[in-house]
Amino acid sequence: MEIACLDLEGVLTPEIWVAVAKQTGIPELATTTRQIPDYDQLMRNRLKLLKQHNLGLKEIQAVIATLDPLDGAPEFLNWLRHHFQVVILSDTFYQFAAPFMAKLGHPTLLCHNLTIDDRGQIAAYHLRQANPKRQAVLAFKSLYYRCIAAGDSHNDTAMFAEADAAIFFRPPPELAKKFPQYPQANTYPEFQTEFTKASHRPLTPP
Amino acid sequence: MEIACLDLEGVLTPEIWVAVAKQTGIPELATTTRQIPDYDQLMRNRLKLLKQHNLGLKEIQAVIATLDPLDGAPEFLNWLRHHFQVVILSDTFYQFAAPFMAKLGHPTLLCHNLTIDDRGQIAAYHLRQANPKRQAVLAFKSLYYRCIAAGDSHNDTAMFAEADAAIFFRPPPELAKKFPQYPQANTYPEFQTEFTKASHRPLTPP
Repeated sequence: MEIACLDLEGVLTPEIWVAVAKQTGIPELATTTRQIPDYDQLMRNRLKLLKQHNLGLKEIQAVIATLDPLDGAPEFLNWLRHHFQVVILSDTFYQFAAPFMAKLGHPTLLCHNLTIDDRGQIAAYHLRQANPKRQAVLAFKSLYYRCIAAGDSHNDTAMFAEADAAIFFRPPPELAKKFPQYPQANTYPEFQTEFTKASHRPLTPP
Repeated sequence: MEIACLDLEGVLTPEIWVAVAKQTGIPELATTTRQIPDYDQLMRNRLKLLKQHNLGLKEIQAVIATLDPLDGAPEFLNWLRHHFQVVILSDTFYQFAAPFMAKLGHPTLLCHNLTIDDRGQIAAYHLRQANPKRQAVLAFKSLYYRCIAAGDSHNDTAMFAEADAAIFFRPPPELAKKFPQYPQANTYPEFQTEFTKASHRPLTPP
């Protein structure tokens, strides 16, 4: 029995903060852990910027609602759900991912949560737990699932290490270089091929 | 963050073996753990009956493909997926559930597995682990999810005991009597109301 543990941003959807930065004209929102490695500080900065620009959850959700999943992502996900159990493991927040989930047919999503105050402003963010993707893979292994993990960034490599197989999708070249043991897919047909190879079951070729 | 752990047969779909017994005209296939409490013996009997009647996986899947989810179940599940993360926890087998999963939009399903031999006959069955529903609830609790479990039978009460809240859907009267602490829903609107009550979040009323 096999489960696909799939990253969200960069794999099925665009990077949400990057897209929000572009759409709102606030380039500082696109800052990532590459520039500010401390995630807590990064999130505090983001929430401060949103408050400064008087952007509440509704405004951000309206921006995200204009975005679409990556071209070909819904079809890929349908194929994947047909052949594997699928769980999306993401470091985004439920409130931001919601518009995408509707467009992707509500796959199961394990991620983080925001507290919204009475005026609709983001009051706080709550990370579910430390190492959330890794812990999720461990939980599915405790249920005797064979886990095939896939993602595109640094925050996926801890789950890669625990998973039974792992696949990079469009990783930054330096990351792929650092972890040469993981195969790489750059298109959805290649991604299907890698999942087919990683599976221990005889799947219908894509 | 809340996850709905939902039973399948009797909650979203008809009882699969009962339906297969009816459609194939082999009433002995409808025997359940109420008549044969030892599940291993029950499954060995079922597989023997299938062999005797020369029914392979293809024939059974063809029967199951003629069945539909319970009336109103897809709409209920869509409502649930909109408001909760949803995982189906079932004691059925992937190969039997597959036609239903396609009709229900491929929700994540954790269940058991069959081995099919070269001639398409069911050679063996594999239970994923002991106490599979209970272990799944424990796994999601290890990820800091609040678990709301729902089901209709004896094999759901172990997960009910571990869950943060639990709901019976159309239970046999003697079971409801034995566990009076759990609320009971008999229609999908009542089921939505009970999930809304069990949630710690302010949900849009159904």
